[in-house]
Amino acid sequence: MGNKEGKIKTIAGGICAVPGFQAWGGSCGIRQNKDKKDLALIYSETDCEAAAVYTKNEVKAAPIYVTKEHLENGKARAVVVNSGNANACAPMGKENAQKECAALANALNISAEDVIVASTGIIGVALPVECIVNAIPQAVTELSAANDTAAAEAILTTDTCIKQKAVQIDLDGTTVTIGAMAKGSGMIHPNMGTMLGFVGTDAVIDSALLQELLKGCIARSFNRISVDGDTSTNDMVCVLANGKAGGAAIKAGTESCELFREALQEVCVDLAKKIAGDGEGAGRLVTCTMVNAQTEEIAETLAKSVISSSLVKAAMFGKDANWGRVLCAMGYAGTVLKPELADVYFKSKKGSVKVCENGEGLLFDEELASAVLGEEQVEIFVDLKDGTASASAWGCDLTYDYVKINGDYRS
Amino acid sequence: MGNKEGKIKTIAGGICAVPGFQAWGGSCGIRQNKDKKDLALIYSETDCEAAAVYTKNEVKAAPIYVTKEHLENGKARAVVVNSGNANACAPMGKENAQKECAALANALNISAEDVIVASTGIIGVALPVECIVNAIPQAVTELSAANDTAAAEAILTTDTCIKQKAVQIDLDGTTVTIGAMAKGSGMIHPNMGTMLGFVGTDAVIDSALLQELLKGCIARSFNRISVDGDTSTNDMVCVLANGKAGGAAIKAGTESCELFREALQEVCVDLAKKIAGDGEGAGRLVTCTMVNAQTEEIAETLAKSVISSSLVKAAMFGKDANWGRVLCAMGYAGTVLKPELADVYFKSKKGSVKVCENGEGLLFDEELASAVLGEEQVEIFVDLKDGTASASAWGCDLTYDYVKINGDYRS
Repeated sequence: MGNKEGKIKTIAGGICAVPGFQAWGGSCGIRQNKDKKDLALIYSETDCEAAAVYTKNEVKAAPIYVTKEHLENGKARAVVVNSGNANACAPMGKENAQKECAALANALNISAEDVIVASTGIIGVALPVECIVNAIPQAVTELSAANDTAAAEAILTTDTCIKQKAVQIDLDGTTVTIGAMAKGSGMIHPNMGTMLGFVGTDAVIDSALLQELLKGCIARSFNRISVDGDTSTNDMVCVLANGKAGGAAIKAGTESCELFREALQEVCVDLAKKIAGDGEGAGRLVTCTMVNAQTEEIAETLAKSVISSSLVKAAMFGKDANWGRVLCAMGYAGTVLKPELADVYFKSKKGSVKVCENGEGLLFDEELASAVLGEEQVEIFVDLKDGTASASAWGCDLTYDYVKINGDYRS
Repeated sequence: MGNKEGKIKTIAGGICAVPGFQAWGGSCGIRQNKDKKDLALIYSETDCEAAAVYTKNEVKAAPIYVTKEHLENGKARAVVVNSGNANACAPMGKENAQKECAALANALNISAEDVIVASTGIIGVALPVECIVNAIPQAVTELSAANDTAAAEAILTTDTCIKQKAVQIDLDGTTVTIGAMAKGSGMIHPNMGTMLGFVGTDAVIDSALLQELLKGCIARSFNRISVDGDTSTNDMVCVLANGKAGGAAIKAGTESCELFREALQEVCVDLAKKIAGDGEGAGRLVTCTMVNAQTEEIAETLAKSVISSSLVKAAMFGKDANWGRVLCAMGYAGTVLKPELADVYFKSKKGSVKVCENGEGLLFDEELASAVLGEEQVEIFVDLKDGTASASAWGCDLTYDYVKINGDYRS
């Protein structure tokens, strides 16, 4: 990791940090509160290779079906996303999603099949599609490489902050940029509110390889902040590659491909951590790391079980070094576990406290533990002493605000 | 059901409503607060056939292992239970659990192998077993058929109320009684705090059949308030049958057996619902019923996914008829689902509101919906229109107090 990390440079901005991408974000009237943006557009000046990963929920929103159809040929050029209404389990869902694509295609003079559509917000209420259709012509005239932050803001729902990331790598002398925006709030975990991610790159890469790389990166990022299958009706992450960087096309199995994959994964992990850590007030990012497992899959299953446990999450809120709940959550994860070998630590920039050794509690400095757990980013670190594989998963604490936000989401 | 229900009569009290059972509950000093009882004993005047079902958690508390050994012969006569300390992941766990059994056996002049031992409370701290051992001799002299309520109180942790149930049935002219106590708090769901259940009966039945019936009843009661495998280190439900009622032994496959099974299930369901609905302040019991599923297993999986969804639970707290979250939770349950057929209703004694038909939202009376959801017991009722099987699961809403209680459980 260390060597490769040095090769991936974080740069300012989001998707518009990538040459050839423009964006727009504003209010079109879906939300009653006009101060909250509700419509975002992303546009590539040239054709793109495209790939996407979708929710596994059996109940899928209409935009998911329409986007899947449009990406069958692996090509796309624009994205329309609204917040405030999920267009899920709603009348005229597919027709309305298609109307959005047609309106944007018409305004941009491209094919409707080259438009990706996504929605997030309330389920079961008809999408006021005319708001979107009416806003698009003017919005398209305002597309600009300076507007990715406005777009990143427009896709938010209960999120408290925008989520963007951009990195650059050097592939055999060619500078390649990856930029992205995402939405999703860790407060809503474990029954995820919608997660959306939109990634752009100027790499030269075909859609089949892009799809394969994206799938792997999602598995180690967005899928590690939720429990398996526990996804909303609207979840989607897509990536558009416009090839503007030039140079040789990225081929599977090469060093360039591995570096590109690492960079894409870094972008996805960064956004996933921003989602996991996004919560009002006392919310903190909780990383659970399992080391020395028999396999990465076992490590991942255990880490996800811990960050999904309501009891662990509530303990993190209370700055309570309650490692018994950590072991308990590992115990019901449904995978290989030798509790009698496990050591548990709580870590943050304030220090590290070992609280459990070989499955049994240690006497530890409660004051230090509370200080460690008082930080905004804390880590539950478990040494399984049963192999050499490791994995991290990310979540947040469970706060009063979670209940408040989700007790009346519709209003 | 209707016919059989009429044959099962609820009577006052708990386990001591069963002839031949005595109990004791008091404080032995495990808890710093002496006003909160922390030790319970149950005693049968004669030998019992015994059966038990244990946690599926890979991390099991010491008393689970000891009880399993003691019940290998299907016999038992007494139970020792403490609250305040789980004796899980703690030094000397098994030795301490055995010391408890030995102390009670000695005081009662029975074999230690006839003692069942259970614990609930903090994990990872050595059990102060001397408190228990020292208290037992005096406690045994105070065993009485009037003390089941004190015992039911002594096994509680974050519970806000004691949980007891007793019923009587007539088996071919013989009156048979089943009485029980349980602990567990719905607030702790979905990552269950410990659930314990202790059932006594005067039925004449052998331990093998008792085990089979108990297993089935647990599957339709306690296991329907938690998600699969999502159990604590200490969960246990046991049943003791002293045979005092006399009459013919219950044989598998007979009408008597079916009525006994129904009665045992009714006791288990009643206790499970009391656990699910137990929460401080605004807590309410939420029943989710799925009807017209292809199989009971599908109905159960869907109902459990709904009552386990943090978003659904928070909506119930907010009296928010957010049926989209109900469909979403059904969608990630990982089983057969035809969302386009599903009708969703919210029900309580205030009325019934149909909010979704064939997977799409209906216009409904929001005021009535809020009134319906304002009751202490509410039901999420889903007609799958896809078969003839049905199942219910029970949970509670997610409240501020959940976070408060679990944010600092150890103090």
